[in-house]
Amino acid sequence: MMHHSFLLEATLIVIILIGMWFSITNFSSIKRIIIGRPMRTKELHAKHNKLFWLIALPILSADLYSSVAYGPESGMTELFSVGSSAQWFILPITIATVILLVILILSYIMGVNAYPNGGGAYAIAKDNFKRPWPALIASSSILVDYILTVAVSISAGIQAVASAYPIIAPYKTVLAILCVILLVIINLRGVAESAAIFAWPTFLFMASMMLVILTGFIDEFRHGFVQNTTPSFGTFPREVTVLLLLKAFSSACSALTGIETISNAVPIFREPQQKSAIKTYLMLGAVTAITLLGYSYHLYVKGIKVDPHNTMLSQLAGQYFGHGIVYQIIIWSTFIVLVLAANSTFTGFSQLSAIVARDGYLPRALRNRGDRLGYSNGIILLAGIASLLIEVFHAQTNALIPLYAIGVFLSFTVAQVGLCLRWGRVKGSLWKVKFGINLAGAIITALVAIIFAVTKFVDGAWIVLIILPLIIVVSISIRRHYDLVASQLRIETKKDFPQPHRILTIVFVSGVHRVVANTLSFAKSIDTDVTAIYIGFDDESIEKMRQKWEEWGSPCKLVTLRSEFRSLMGPIARYIKTLEEIEGKPDHIHVVMPQFIPKKWWHNLLHNQSALLIRAWLLFNKDVIITTVPYHLRK
Amino acid sequence: MMHHSFLLEATLIVIILIGMWFSITNFSSIKRIIIGRPMRTKELHAKHNKLFWLIALPILSADLYSSVAYGPESGMTELFSVGSSAQWFILPITIATVILLVILILSYIMGVNAYPNGGGAYAIAKDNFKRPWPALIASSSILVDYILTVAVSISAGIQAVASAYPIIAPYKTVLAILCVILLVIINLRGVAESAAIFAWPTFLFMASMMLVILTGFIDEFRHGFVQNTTPSFGTFPREVTVLLLLKAFSSACSALTGIETISNAVPIFREPQQKSAIKTYLMLGAVTAITLLGYSYHLYVKGIKVDPHNTMLSQLAGQYFGHGIVYQIIIWSTFIVLVLAANSTFTGFSQLSAIVARDGYLPRALRNRGDRLGYSNGIILLAGIASLLIEVFHAQTNALIPLYAIGVFLSFTVAQVGLCLRWGRVKGSLWKVKFGINLAGAIITALVAIIFAVTKFVDGAWIVLIILPLIIVVSISIRRHYDLVASQLRIETKKDFPQPHRILTIVFVSGVHRVVANTLSFAKSIDTDVTAIYIGFDDESIEKMRQKWEEWGSPCKLVTLRSEFRSLMGPIARYIKTLEEIEGKPDHIHVVMPQFIPKKWWHNLLHNQSALLIRAWLLFNKDVIITTVPYHLRK
Repeated sequence: MMHHSFLLEATLIVIILIGMWFSITNFSSIKRIIIGRPMRTKELHAKHNKLFWLIALPILSADLYSSVAYGPESGMTELFSVGSSAQWFILPITIATVILLVILILSYIMGVNAYPNGGGAYAIAKDNFKRPWPALIASSSILVDYILTVAVSISAGIQAVASAYPIIAPYKTVLAILCVILLVIINLRGVAESAAIFAWPTFLFMASMMLVILTGFIDEFRHGFVQNTTPSFGTFPREVTVLLLLKAFSSACSALTGIETISNAVPIFREPQQKSAIKTYLMLGAVTAITLLGYSYHLYVKGIKVDPHNTMLSQLAGQYFGHGIVYQIIIWSTFIVLVLAANSTFTGFSQLSAIVARDGYLPRALRNRGDRLGYSNGIILLAGIASLLIEVFHAQTNALIPLYAIGVFLSFTVAQVGLCLRWGRVKGSLWKVKFGINLAGAIITALVAIIFAVTKFVDGAWIVLIILPLIIVVSISIRRHYDLVASQLRIETKKDFPQPHRILTIVFVSGVHRVVANTLSFAKSIDTDVTAIYIGFDDESIEKMRQKWEEWGSPCKLVTLRSEFRSLMGPIARYIKTLEEIEGKPDHIHVVMPQFIPKKWWHNLLHNQSALLIRAWLLFNKDVIITTVPYHLRK
Repeated sequence: MMHHSFLLEATLIVIILIGMWFSITNFSSIKRIIIGRPMRTKELHAKHNKLFWLIALPILSADLYSSVAYGPESGMTELFSVGSSAQWFILPITIATVILLVILILSYIMGVNAYPNGGGAYAIAKDNFKRPWPALIASSSILVDYILTVAVSISAGIQAVASAYPIIAPYKTVLAILCVILLVIINLRGVAESAAIFAWPTFLFMASMMLVILTGFIDEFRHGFVQNTTPSFGTFPREVTVLLLLKAFSSACSALTGIETISNAVPIFREPQQKSAIKTYLMLGAVTAITLLGYSYHLYVKGIKVDPHNTMLSQLAGQYFGHGIVYQIIIWSTFIVLVLAANSTFTGFSQLSAIVARDGYLPRALRNRGDRLGYSNGIILLAGIASLLIEVFHAQTNALIPLYAIGVFLSFTVAQVGLCLRWGRVKGSLWKVKFGINLAGAIITALVAIIFAVTKFVDGAWIVLIILPLIIVVSISIRRHYDLVASQLRIETKKDFPQPHRILTIVFVSGVHRVVANTLSFAKSIDTDVTAIYIGFDDESIEKMRQKWEEWGSPCKLVTLRSEFRSLMGPIARYIKTLEEIEGKPDHIHVVMPQFIPKKWWHNLLHNQSALLIRAWLLFNKDVIITTVPYHLRK
């Protein structure tokens, strides 16, 4: 089974690579079917229509709200590592998480006030720090967390569906990668992220969660508030350590990821934009807090246990509603909202990487807009790494969680410190209050990030702690490279004006035939003094070539080189070196080579690609100008 | 376990691909360590030293004699498909096999007499048939069988070792592919195949087999000639059908593969060459016949059963000698002789494919001699396909046998018919006798080939029966392609003499910087009328470029194109089409492009490779001459 599924997965990854190839080639017919017609650059600004805040709420909240599907479960799973005796601690842990949520929402509201045009942590850091590295910490930790969001959300979504349909459990990894590929296609097509249709699944999921919580309370009213399977509230078993509680808290905090989405999207609101955004933040915060508290409470009361084949939400819903239609609605709305969260991450990742690339800290290719105006390279990069993570961690949400959320809290910290600096500089009304709030936010998020890093270090956080500094160092050296190149290419107008050079033209010939005639015709059109070079493997073939050349009428001087080792590069390299060393050497050596273009591309297999190899070798090893004269075969 | 081993195998296959890359690139340092220093073409003829026939015997017999390690076992395995009741039929089947061996050796002796310079079936067929296809049947069936020889021999060798060391059994496929890779390296290094050192393992294996047979007889003298476990000789159980016996015979005949080696190698014998070769054939035939009969007899008498984890030779040797030093010698000499058989196949395959390629029926690349004078491409092609077979059939000898030996007997038939034709044409002394022998040989080998094809059809022979005609059709169309190309390139001396053409030079520019200055300098050196082309994605960037161009001093005319879809190919294609359609159009359009060469190759990742893409696209889609002006960055 595993063997089989590995093959399938390998195939899927190959498909992603082919997708990558799509984005750089012009293989139009298939591309057109999958991606759609290309769009004009000016169509870019016609896409956004402003949204009423109540519709914007679910669209922008998929990212944060979907996290409740795995956050509390992940905290519970940590607590279960010492058996069911620690189960009741989920209640104080959830309360701590909700307090953190409130602090974060307050801080983000301050951010929205300060940067109404959408200010992510990267923009805030760039604006308020003199040095580039705080902004790079913010950008790279967000980019890493975006990748993890896709991996975690998709894995959690598939796990939800697999809880209802255990038959698909062995194919979780494949199905998760298939979802990623589907998202790539959707994002390369560039569906408008803010379409109102995306609002309904999130509403449905919110309603489902509320129904679960409400049903739970009714159920407890009927049967009494008795917790019957685990140690009762308030007991302190010996095996519960501070480390365990911090670990459970770290895991539960993965429920807070995605909180930044609204602050990045202020421009999509109808006027008054800032006010609408703040209203949305408050509303979303309230709904999320209620959900987290209610859901965790019922998990505790009903004594839900860890089951890798059945998510806790599925267990709870099963207990309340059986496995009928209501249960199905809960499962599928969970799946859809998690996929939507991953989907919005695609936009976030590709836009942020394009912004960072524009500043020269990431490869320029990430700035290129694809046919449908999305940043295709960023989309494919995200999909590739996320698929790799899903493959390596076999689509296990709980295995991915330890890597998750450190990045988010790091970038939160950077943004808060940035805002503190801003209030100190800009001042304005109530600046001390604002400063205080952001300072508190900075301290708390920094503490949380440290708690994450320490408690989850051995479980996977070390990977992130190695990769983040690496990305920052690489980013800085990428920028340095671009600066260096720019300084080398800068023109001093008068000195660097084009001047005609003395050129020496040589032509490689492989015999006497039409391709050679065609190539020599071109060479003689641009230079009167052309030398033909023939490389023979033995004296016999060289002698034969000389005779043929004479018979043909010696269109130009023929130089013959002998290659005892049957290599073409050796004699060519030595000949060019000789030319470079002679007295009165030319400014440029110009190598003219024929290229045989057969009628069908697969005919190339039947011809030695010496010309291609020589050209590639010369290009990267010698300072010569290379001209290719194609000869298109008609038959 | 399987998952893990698949990964390993995938890695190994990647290594083979890297090997392929070695053979086409000049990545010298690593290549030198693995392959050794390059050799001069003239060293080619210094390699062979003539051999005394008794030394040549084991060297040339590894291929045939090693087959006894799997031939009888494979026949027995077929018989066991109806339980042990059919076991005694191995005796008449082996006798039939030996009769076939005698006929084949007689026929090959006639071949050696007729073609003393080494005449394989391909050479014989080419010489005696007017049409090319009989020779192609011979060559393609031998090439296919060479591939199978490598897969079968290596699999059988690893199976022998795994019988002694069951711990390696789960890694058989990986180890087999490792052996193939080792053989690739050995053959790329080009160890002289006829080195006397190769004689000893085969001698040792022959001696081991003789010892096993002799010990068997002594054993039976002591314990009486009683066969105690299976139905006695001569009983006809109902479940034994003619089809079963023919199938078992087909499988047992895999013991005859490799018989052609001596006839191909006549030139390596000391004078008198033909006499020595014939003596060797007779001697080898006698030894092989004794081994087959004696070994099969003991397999029957001792009631050896099929055990996929323990070869029959290992079981028999274990019964006679326990698992001590004698057993170890038998196992390891079996392994080594099977690897030697695969090794000599590498030479055979690469030489035959080079000969066929020289006649234009296979891609020309197969004619290229590598650094060490071996035909590297043929060696790597063989290793690649054989590894694929080993991977697909999980290194199971018995799964590969049904595909095997059809090719050998097909080519035998072609060669025999060819010899008949020759005797009818050349006549000479006793020609009617020779004709008769070869005719009988042709009829019998044709019958055997048909029996193989029919009885083993569903077990895998169908693969070969599909692939063979395919190869022949492809071979003929390859030859047609080469003929067509040659006719298109042929020169009519006066008409095709190089004439200067009218050239129109255009230069793609991406801005105003040194790379552009350098490129324009070259363009202006070869043509006075140069046009610069700039492609902008919006009006703003085009306007900016126009201004910069003016400021710089307008070194030549600037044409700006706007690309609404952000594609470079579209505007370029349209512009070139316009140029081709204007009145008084030039003979050639000459596109000059800059190419940015960074100091480190991985810096290429940081630069859009637009120039590279445009060049590749133009080369295959447009009839324009393309010049690359490199700009090497210093920092």
